Amino acid sequence: MDGLSALLPPGRVLSDPDVLRSYSHDEAEWAPWELPAVVVRPRTAEEVQVVVRYCVERGIPVVTRGAGTGLSGGANATAGCAVIALDGMRAIREIDPLEKLAVVEPGVVNDDLRAACAEQGLWYPPDPASSPWSTIGGNVATNAGGVCCVKYGVTGDYVLGLQVVTGTGELVRLGRRTAKGVAGYDLTSLLVGSEGTLGVITEVTVRLRPRREPEHTVAGYFSSVVAAGLAVERIAAAGLTPSALELVDRQCLAAVDEWKNMGLSADADTVLLGRTDAPGAAGDAEADAMVACFEAAGATWSARSTNQAEADALFDARRLAYPALERLGPVLTEDICVPVGRVAEMLGRVQAIGERHDTTIANIAHAGDGNLHPLLLTRPGDEDGRARAQAAFADIIAEALELGGTVTGEHGVGLLKRDGLRRELDPAVLALHRAVRDALDPHHVLNPGKVFGQENE
Amino acid sequence: MDGLSALLPPGRVLSDPDVLRSYSHDEAEWAPWELPAVVVRPRTAEEVQVVVRYCVERGIPVVTRGAGTGLSGGANATAGCAVIALDGMRAIREIDPLEKLAVVEPGVVNDDLRAACAEQGLWYPPDPASSPWSTIGGNVATNAGGVCCVKYGVTGDYVLGLQVVTGTGELVRLGRRTAKGVAGYDLTSLLVGSEGTLGVITEVTVRLRPRREPEHTVAGYFSSVVAAGLAVERIAAAGLTPSALELVDRQCLAAVDEWKNMGLSADADTVLLGRTDAPGAAGDAEADAMVACFEAAGATWSARSTNQAEADALFDARRLAYPALERLGPVLTEDICVPVGRVAEMLGRVQAIGERHDTTIANIAHAGDGNLHPLLLTRPGDEDGRARAQAAFADIIAEALELGGTVTGEHGVGLLKRDGLRRELDPAVLALHRAVRDALDPHHVLNPGKVFGQENE
Repeated sequence: MDGLSALLPPGRVLSDPDVLRSYSHDEAEWAPWELPAVVVRPRTAEEVQVVVRYCVERGIPVVTRGAGTGLSGGANATAGCAVIALDGMRAIREIDPLEKLAVVEPGVVNDDLRAACAEQGLWYPPDPASSPWSTIGGNVATNAGGVCCVKYGVTGDYVLGLQVVTGTGELVRLGRRTAKGVAGYDLTSLLVGSEGTLGVITEVTVRLRPRREPEHTVAGYFSSVVAAGLAVERIAAAGLTPSALELVDRQCLAAVDEWKNMGLSADADTVLLGRTDAPGAAGDAEADAMVACFEAAGATWSARSTNQAEADALFDARRLAYPALERLGPVLTEDICVPVGRVAEMLGRVQAIGERHDTTIANIAHAGDGNLHPLLLTRPGDEDGRARAQAAFADIIAEALELGGTVTGEHGVGLLKRDGLRRELDPAVLALHRAVRDALDPHHVLNPGKVFGQENE
Repeated sequence: MDGLSALLPPGRVLSDPDVLRSYSHDEAEWAPWELPAVVVRPRTAEEVQVVVRYCVERGIPVVTRGAGTGLSGGANATAGCAVIALDGMRAIREIDPLEKLAVVEPGVVNDDLRAACAEQGLWYPPDPASSPWSTIGGNVATNAGGVCCVKYGVTGDYVLGLQVVTGTGELVRLGRRTAKGVAGYDLTSLLVGSEGTLGVITEVTVRLRPRREPEHTVAGYFSSVVAAGLAVERIAAAGLTPSALELVDRQCLAAVDEWKNMGLSADADTVLLGRTDAPGAAGDAEADAMVACFEAAGATWSARSTNQAEADALFDARRLAYPALERLGPVLTEDICVPVGRVAEMLGRVQAIGERHDTTIANIAHAGDGNLHPLLLTRPGDEDGRARAQAAFADIIAEALELGGTVTGEHGVGLLKRDGLRRELDPAVLALHRAVRDALDPHHVLNPGKVFGQENE
């Protein structure tokens, strides 16, 4: 692709094999990937447009990526593709305290945006566990979730507008800067979560909130994941709106503790971590009500945390669970989401599935949302164990659908959930998806093979 | 269309001229309409599917409507079309307090859903002024706003899933019942606000919230709309999150009072009505902070309402302003939305536009959102005044765009804002819209001529 280099400033087009390898896949350990033909690191929307137009003219697949922290293989390179890496476009262009919005380039790291907003008394809520590394562009492309979603919603709830290069190489602005607006179709929401198949995002306008009240933390210890699941249901039934409601099991706590020596040796099988940011006395009352729900559901121990450092350590452990387990061997991450009333049943089923397939399954979960992340653990090089884990993975998907759930709550379809998507959606609905994709990417150059699978599948 | 009658149970297909006339237009006083060929009042999704398939096969335009309370002509009949009136499909199928969702037929009236939810301690927030009459299906098709949007968002923020008959006559389910989910494109959001051009909605699954705290009301009197606009900006700058922030001018209050004798003779040019539903002491503090903002912005009088009946009367007056003015003559309703920091300037410009075109303009506004509804008043039969009002309408749109606003904040494009849409969106973005429309309505039978205009325009 020497021709492409000539169209861009020096240094943008990279083809060193080590570079190609380092940009060739995300963190979905088990998803296939190939080496790209080139990696392009544009600095402007116009440079992105040059790359897309070049690829459209030649039928070269375009795979877009941010930090590569995805867990479904959505950013994995295909043979001969051009990877557009947006990690060099990391300017925060504007934070407007009056309109409560920010305009950022797609490569801005989630935590960096949050910190910049906090300096002005503002808050950008979406907080995936990858927030120290993942980018806003990637968060938008996958409609990333996080801990605060249970009260504050997901990334898409904060996207007001996008600048996008389309599958025909047009550079367009979608959405708006006003609080409301219904002029035309909501193409902004259509792009959110489209995993690079409908356009390349070159700028994001996000909605912000005023800084919130300090949170109270509540912890509960339970003798099983099912008992913890019943406590989650009880909190929903009580009409509480926690600002976080996370589940971490003993295997995860032990793995984090072994790595970080945080003194987390919880005397429990499963821990629930709740938070409330209701102001003043309402926050106190909600924290007390959460403790009461935990106790009524049979918690072996439950209390409000009086020590902020200790509370933060528990949430850090939640965030670090995935990398901590990865240190021990290949991890296959699930991402099902079920109705809140089915959380306990699904957690029980996951346990049974692990036993059935002789597979160790650890659990973290955005429990309040019903978004479960069973983590299927294998030993390095254990091919038989790997096959058993894959069978368990398929069963988890099937049983989540049986309970009225979805195959992906926040990680996206990518490569790992393509079969799941076909199980979840009717053929007529899949046909609508393809029609929309054909409308916006008529040449099929944008991340082909992801989400839907190849054309002949 | 005798053939259609034979495919449906008796009484569904209506062709009495009076019936045709009564279903031929919405409340957009100045939008053109024709008599439909038939009106069909289906009772099930399958019956809707029969009608759409019949029309697809014969190229008959389908115009879908709920209660017909729209203000942009989006539900106006075109010559020879089939009107599908969903006002007979008004079952609330399910309210689930644990999952906090409801499943309803499209003809359920907004206030009826709210009342049914309240019985179970739940709250359906979207509250357009038409809520006593308008239907959830119509609210979804236009992405209706309302008073509580300033804190709680618009209709689309509450739509979890839809059942839809597509432009090819397929009956499909989009979206989900879980709190989160990213399996495939967000086609649900694409359908929301698509004004009947992408599918006919036959069922809606909405998200609910727990019942909220009682609200405190704050009123402020101002000597001009511009002064009131500056108070709105001050509230945003202070980082307050009122649960309502409405503007009503003296002309509206006088018209309502003349009609309803509510004793509203406000000693002010413009009234701002704020509310807060923050719990306990936080609510008291936020109400006091609003009063302080009003006073700092030069309110001639401002206070917290200590009398609930009086507070409700002021909000009733806000809701009744439009019908009250309609009693006096034809009203052309504007629906621009500008950034909060431009509200005062835009209100000043509206005043100047009215003077320039010798047109009386009253004002109501969801001021906290920047969503302004200048109401252009004419005398019955005054053709010259009507032409002046239309010139003023065009100027308001142009100046809203100049200030970074949108031509429609919550009423939709319909017929009245088609020119505005073409001014607001780039040709490349309009082309994306047409591509998406062609994907989902390939035969161009769904509300043709609305939103985009005719094909040759």
